[in-house]
Amino acid sequence: MSDTPSTVSQASSLSAFAPEALVRVKERAPLVQCLTNAVVTGFTANVLLAVGASPAMVDIPGEAGMFARIASGLLVNLGTPHAEQRAAMLEAARAAADEGTPWVLDPVAVGQLPVRTALARELLDLRPTLIRGNASEIIALAGVGAGGRGVDASDTVEAAEETAGELARTHGAVVAVSGPVDFVTDGGRSARIANGDALLTQVTGGGCALGAVLAAFAAVDDDRFATTVAGIAAYTVAAEQAAKNASGPGSFAVAFLDALASLPASELAERAVIA
Amino acid sequence: MSDTPSTVSQASSLSAFAPEALVRVKERAPLVQCLTNAVVTGFTANVLLAVGASPAMVDIPGEAGMFARIASGLLVNLGTPHAEQRAAMLEAARAAADEGTPWVLDPVAVGQLPVRTALARELLDLRPTLIRGNASEIIALAGVGAGGRGVDASDTVEAAEETAGELARTHGAVVAVSGPVDFVTDGGRSARIANGDALLTQVTGGGCALGAVLAAFAAVDDDRFATTVAGIAAYTVAAEQAAKNASGPGSFAVAFLDALASLPASELAERAVIA
Amino acid sequence: MSDTPSTVSQASSLSAFAPEALVRVKERAPLVQCLTNAVVTGFTANVLLAVGASPAMVDIPGEAGMFARIASGLLVNLGTPHAEQRAAMLEAARAAADEGTPWVLDPVAVGQLPVRTALARELLDLRPTLIRGNASEIIALAGVGAGGRGVDASDTVEAAEETAGELARTHGAVVAVSGPVDFVTDGGRSARIANGDALLTQVTGGGCALGAVLAAFAAVDDDRFATTVAGIAAYTVAAEQAAKNASGPGSFAVAFLDALASLPASELAERAVIA
Repeated sequence: MSDTPSTVSQASSLSAFAPEALVRVKERAPLVQCLTNAVVTGFTANVLLAVGASPAMVDIPGEAGMFARIASGLLVNLGTPHAEQRAAMLEAARAAADEGTPWVLDPVAVGQLPVRTALARELLDLRPTLIRGNASEIIALAGVGAGGRGVDASDTVEAAEETAGELARTHGAVVAVSGPVDFVTDGGRSARIANGDALLTQVTGGGCALGAVLAAFAAVDDDRFATTVAGIAAYTVAAEQAAKNASGPGSFAVAFLDALASLPASELAERAVIA
Repeated sequence: MSDTPSTVSQASSLSAFAPEALVRVKERAPLVQCLTNAVVTGFTANVLLAVGASPAMVDIPGEAGMFARIASGLLVNLGTPHAEQRAAMLEAARAAADEGTPWVLDPVAVGQLPVRTALARELLDLRPTLIRGNASEIIALAGVGAGGRGVDASDTVEAAEETAGELARTHGAVVAVSGPVDFVTDGGRSARIANGDALLTQVTGGGCALGAVLAAFAAVDDDRFATTVAGIAAYTVAAEQAAKNASGPGSFAVAFLDALASLPASELAERAVIA
Repeated sequence: MSDTPSTVSQASSLSAFAPEALVRVKERAPLVQCLTNAVVTGFTANVLLAVGASPAMVDIPGEAGMFARIASGLLVNLGTPHAEQRAAMLEAARAAADEGTPWVLDPVAVGQLPVRTALARELLDLRPTLIRGNASEIIALAGVGAGGRGVDASDTVEAAEETAGELARTHGAVVAVSGPVDFVTDGGRSARIANGDALLTQVTGGGCALGAVLAAFAAVDDDRFATTVAGIAAYTVAAEQAAKNASGPGSFAVAFLDALASLPASELAERAVIA
């Protein structure tokens, strides 16, 4: 839905773009439709509100496609894909692809589990704007696309980088691999973001809500490689801020929402470690 | 289910009634059945527990109607109405209407989205005790009832007041319009509650959980105009208390539950701005 | 899935075993599959992460059974059992029973509500490793098993002790009755844990998440009577710690996750009141 021309053409300007993208999200309040798993819906909506976006969990057939045409961005997360939601996901993804709404595919646990794996294959054919997962999910999804198989929970981000590049080129998507250092590629350009805190992995939805945030950022510029780097940087710098005030995962989750809501663009510019 | 005779007959006594209603909720712990959206179930249950009510999310066909006969109050919220829940909502509303259990309809995003709009029309025919929404939802719902259409997200509470009165008279319901200043009408009497904090809109479920609280308050007196004003006052005064201790939406949500749980009746009496 | 031989043979060593079990959970990070109700999924996952386990909410037919064969433990909680989840619950419980994966049945509100009551009967025939509920649920479940009926919300833990023992012997399960003082029995041995705080009942999912924690503890030793006592002790001692820093149910829930994540084994050894 974004018709803003790209303002970013080189990886070297990614660091300068991140604070600008954050400001745009807070100013424009993109409407982000989420079809996501039952575990993280509340946290995801709160993260979107904190970052300045407007969440809408419209996830039933007969409404999901229609809404994807007016949404600024869409998240399709495969965490708990019951039958009705699967139908709504395909409906929404088709509408988004047709309308040009940027959409994010989060292939949770794809590879070993057959229902979501079959669904991921269909969704991949609809050419997601952006794919976000951990290293094992990205490797598994690439295998799914090739008719292959496999997921190894011990995969490192580094081990997934080449596969991520191929996945990006094959499907015309930006691919983001989450881990201690995040990796983003569009098949040509690539970048690493070295922010964040391990406490983010101790809060359920830490990764899933990032997918929603990346849909929000994708709505504010046509260069989705740059918006993805910016979104990850904002998210993980906020996590670092939150960790300073946390005594554990409970207080971290609370502080993280506060940090996302108040993160100044200047702080993001200063703290983001993008290479 | 309440068979307490009304103790409130004039708008002028609304301020005096609010603390009394809060005390009754905390003493009687009304059992509030919620058929609500997937995003806010946890927060809604925690809000009900904090205010002193007893939540029960019985939302499947074959159980929802039976439970609505023993519940003290019922909430039907249309946020994510998948097929099985839609059937359960109609079953519960029919049983509540038949049994006299007070029930609240929250017409989330009605007007533009066809599945929930058709459902809202059916539910409206079952004569909800109370309808709660933002200005645009109330205007849209009135249009739905008249066979019309339309929702404009920019509607103000003021713009919805006349429509709210008509909706109340047509359907025999109390109508509550949420906004910076809340408006309540039963078609004859009307009142405005000028409490609350903008942070409440930054927490997902801030409005949805209010619907559940209004079902709890509706259980403690037969004057549902007065109980609705009381419930909104308690909710929004607690929000003001919470905002004092909050650094953002994360800490606000935590402080809000603490404030709801500990709000003294005397504090509510002193702080509520009801006109 | 645990093939660790039992290290506990006498109730007298339960207090010594509890800290050892906590250490094992934190070291082994058991993979706990949860088919649980929509209200508490997020809180349950966060509790599992805090205690050191790895949550996975795989709850759709076609995946639930397969996953139950690789999970370290399984929770089946009947809180909001929609049709698709009911099928997945039976699939998962059958696979767990066949594979030897320890599994926990939490019979929420069984007895009065017919859909979940029929489901509970089927699940009971699959011989859960562990049954956890409040006194009324345990009494009702025993009645269900015998073809009987009935639930009385005012039942005390003491009133359920004899029934719990019979239920344990009839179905070959460990039975845990939650209350101010928790009671655990395997039909022969029994124990009481006198820790906890009333604030735990003011947070939705306080009991439901305990069921998930007991599935995690069941994965680290074959003596499920001892692991259940240990899990309850860890959970309720953490609740006591959390209550010290809480101003109400909101801040308690946050502090509880922090306390679970940081509870030292030595603290558990010192504070657990097991008799």
